[in-house]
Amino acid sequence: MPVLNDEVPDDGDFDAGRRRGEFDDITPEDFIHGSNHSNPPGWLGPADISRARRQIPIAYVEIVPVRTDDMGRVSQVGSLLHVSDDGSIERTLITGRVLFHETLREAIARNIAKDLGDIALPMLPQNLQPFTVAEFFPTPGLSEFYDPRQHAIALCYVVPIAGDCKPQDETLDVEWVDPRGDVMETFIGQMVNGHGKIVRQALAWLGV
Amino acid sequence: MPVLNDEVPDDGDFDAGRRRGEFDDITPEDFIHGSNHSNPPGWLGPADISRARRQIPIAYVEIVPVRTDDMGRVSQVGSLLHVSDDGSIERTLITGRVLFHETLREAIARNIAKDLGDIALPMLPQNLQPFTVAEFFPTPGLSEFYDPRQHAIALCYVVPIAGDCKPQDETLDVEWVDPRGDVMETFIGQMVNGHGKIVRQALAWLGV
Amino acid sequence: MPVLNDEVPDDGDFDAGRRRGEFDDITPEDFIHGSNHSNPPGWLGPADISRARRQIPIAYVEIVPVRTDDMGRVSQVGSLLHVSDDGSIERTLITGRVLFHETLREAIARNIAKDLGDIALPMLPQNLQPFTVAEFFPTPGLSEFYDPRQHAIALCYVVPIAGDCKPQDETLDVEWVDPRGDVMETFIGQMVNGHGKIVRQALAWLGV
Amino acid sequence: MPVLNDEVPDDGDFDAGRRRGEFDDITPEDFIHGSNHSNPPGWLGPADISRARRQIPIAYVEIVPVRTDDMGRVSQVGSLLHVSDDGSIERTLITGRVLFHETLREAIARNIAKDLGDIALPMLPQNLQPFTVAEFFPTPGLSEFYDPRQHAIALCYVVPIAGDCKPQDETLDVEWVDPRGDVMETFIGQMVNGHGKIVRQALAWLGV
Repeated sequence: MPVLNDEVPDDGDFDAGRRRGEFDDITPEDFIHGSNHSNPPGWLGPADISRARRQIPIAYVEIVPVRTDDMGRVSQVGSLLHVSDDGSIERTLITGRVLFHETLREAIARNIAKDLGDIALPMLPQNLQPFTVAEFFPTPGLSEFYDPRQHAIALCYVVPIAGDCKPQDETLDVEWVDPRGDVMETFIGQMVNGHGKIVRQALAWLGV
Repeated sequence: MPVLNDEVPDDGDFDAGRRRGEFDDITPEDFIHGSNHSNPPGWLGPADISRARRQIPIAYVEIVPVRTDDMGRVSQVGSLLHVSDDGSIERTLITGRVLFHETLREAIARNIAKDLGDIALPMLPQNLQPFTVAEFFPTPGLSEFYDPRQHAIALCYVVPIAGDCKPQDETLDVEWVDPRGDVMETFIGQMVNGHGKIVRQALAWLGV
Repeated sequence: MPVLNDEVPDDGDFDAGRRRGEFDDITPEDFIHGSNHSNPPGWLGPADISRARRQIPIAYVEIVPVRTDDMGRVSQVGSLLHVSDDGSIERTLITGRVLFHETLREAIARNIAKDLGDIALPMLPQNLQPFTVAEFFPTPGLSEFYDPRQHAIALCYVVPIAGDCKPQDETLDVEWVDPRGDVMETFIGQMVNGHGKIVRQALAWLGV
Repeated sequence: MPVLNDEVPDDGDFDAGRRRGEFDDITPEDFIHGSNHSNPPGWLGPADISRARRQIPIAYVEIVPVRTDDMGRVSQVGSLLHVSDDGSIERTLITGRVLFHETLREAIARNIAKDLGDIALPMLPQNLQPFTVAEFFPTPGLSEFYDPRQHAIALCYVVPIAGDCKPQDETLDVEWVDPRGDVMETFIGQMVNGHGKIVRQALAWLGV
């Protein structure tokens, strides 16, 4: 089921290369040992993140990647084809939770690198005012944003990508489309749980 | 030490009327019983909130209350005199964490009612784009915003107050001053850990 | 032809009660005399406004009137039925140019009063950052915003209306609809020259 | 007297290379001939621009140029040393009016090129929502923004500059300073008529 991406390990991490389903068997003790194997600071083991998700809202960043022309106008909007936990393929944006002691800028840069690779050259925003805040609830129908795992508060940013994209990990492909074309509408329709609505809000904010 | 207000019980709660220091002795078992005494949904006991604060960023709302004239111009800015955990008096804004399954609007309304009472008549924002996002870290000097208890991500809003204010609980008084006067500068200087900076950012955003 | 409203006189003005077509015969000399009859300061006669419209961009405010609930959520969006210069009926927003020596707040308040009457009780924005800026050009197809008379730069605001509306002058009626309903979509389709797009951008910005 | 820059010709224009004072003797007839000499479209002769300035608000863009680091944080803020009409030297931002039939993006790009040269590589904003709108009035004291020549409505943007700056025309130098340092404060103090306030608002919006 397509939801906010989360806890995807980076290359070299304790759990890099494992399928996400394998996390289910990791005990807190494993995780403590795992922390000796270079998990990123702030990364939580499955017991801790599961408990937190039942207790408090989880802070997220959600990024709409765009290509711009010389005049700053958005010429293309990117979306990801992503392998979800159950093995199905979903269309998503770039999302991830903010880790303990991580700044929003670091979270934005880390999550872009996680999905688009290290030479994407994102042009991070000068100010951190999000264009919108999306509230995901674990109860279907409570709002237009739904995440079965958690209550998430996602700060949403548009980030121009100036470099080359090399999809990473569970991200199979990055597809760029003209925001004024028919394919954009099709792609928005393929994004579930409210992520398509975030693209629409981004396009309206951009004046497209 | 003046920090982000948190977990202040409402009237009728299990722990209403207790000093905050008393929370220290409450065990998780007490809290479980306490939950039979109408704590708000999403409210966490001391063990759970303490653990969460060491593990993940905590989502907050922070509100700059203002009075406006007929033309929408800000005529006065409010600040609170608040009894801190150690019994000292601090000058603060209205802050509080977002509870599990609570919307941002509910969190804003609840925290205003907690500090200003039920007839303050806040005019909540039509859109949830915060004027700034303040990142509080538990490490002094890491950023201009400091909170010894936690990593907090505070969405900051300006909210006009149209009604009467009746300070509640630990809030001793609400003081309104002309944002263009000398007293405003003095009050900003009295707010520590970055809250004064949030007022300055609000005033700049308001064009004052 | 439905365009940005402009130069609509207030009650008591020299030209109040006249149909707009009658302006065509007013000479600059009439206007000079007219200025003794309480035209608003900054109001221009037809020769001057026509010349200005061929020479420089004209600054406008454009207002999306809304009704909000206790939590600040938009419950209804207003649109106007307006008699255009050629006598046809058009659906519009509240628009008007900023007069010489008039502040943006005054222009917003004046144009709301012109269309909705004096007891509409608009809640003017605390800060003047528009949710978008719409650029109208006199050349069809140059942008999504078109105004045959002029190049206009419209600062766009959402303004909650708390009072009663009494349509004035050329405004025949104000109609309020649920922004989530089908009628909203119909009304947006009825607004030409880009005004419907401004409503869509407002709704996206509001998170509706 | 330091005011909003305006009507500075580009290289190759009819009046390029002339001191601005020379414009005073140009008659409308000269200007009509001048229009055969490649003045930019929308450029007005002295009689027309003078009349417009006495009749309606003039639309401006005002740009705070910045340098950013890899994370999008502002590392430096630029200001210009500019020769004013009376030959004195003033510290300013990049400002200019929006010409007839010119888009805001074109006006931003043209005015940056005018002051910083053609290889400044400005990163224009993806959306045109200004961080603030400054209202300049010709009456001293009416607002914090003053322009003796006109009523100007300035849409204010922060624009990162990625390339090299080659000051042009009346611009003698571009000076870059750390926004957190003492020199920033000195420079802000040197900007008159409200431009220093615009820098302060930009810094607050940027979270500096």
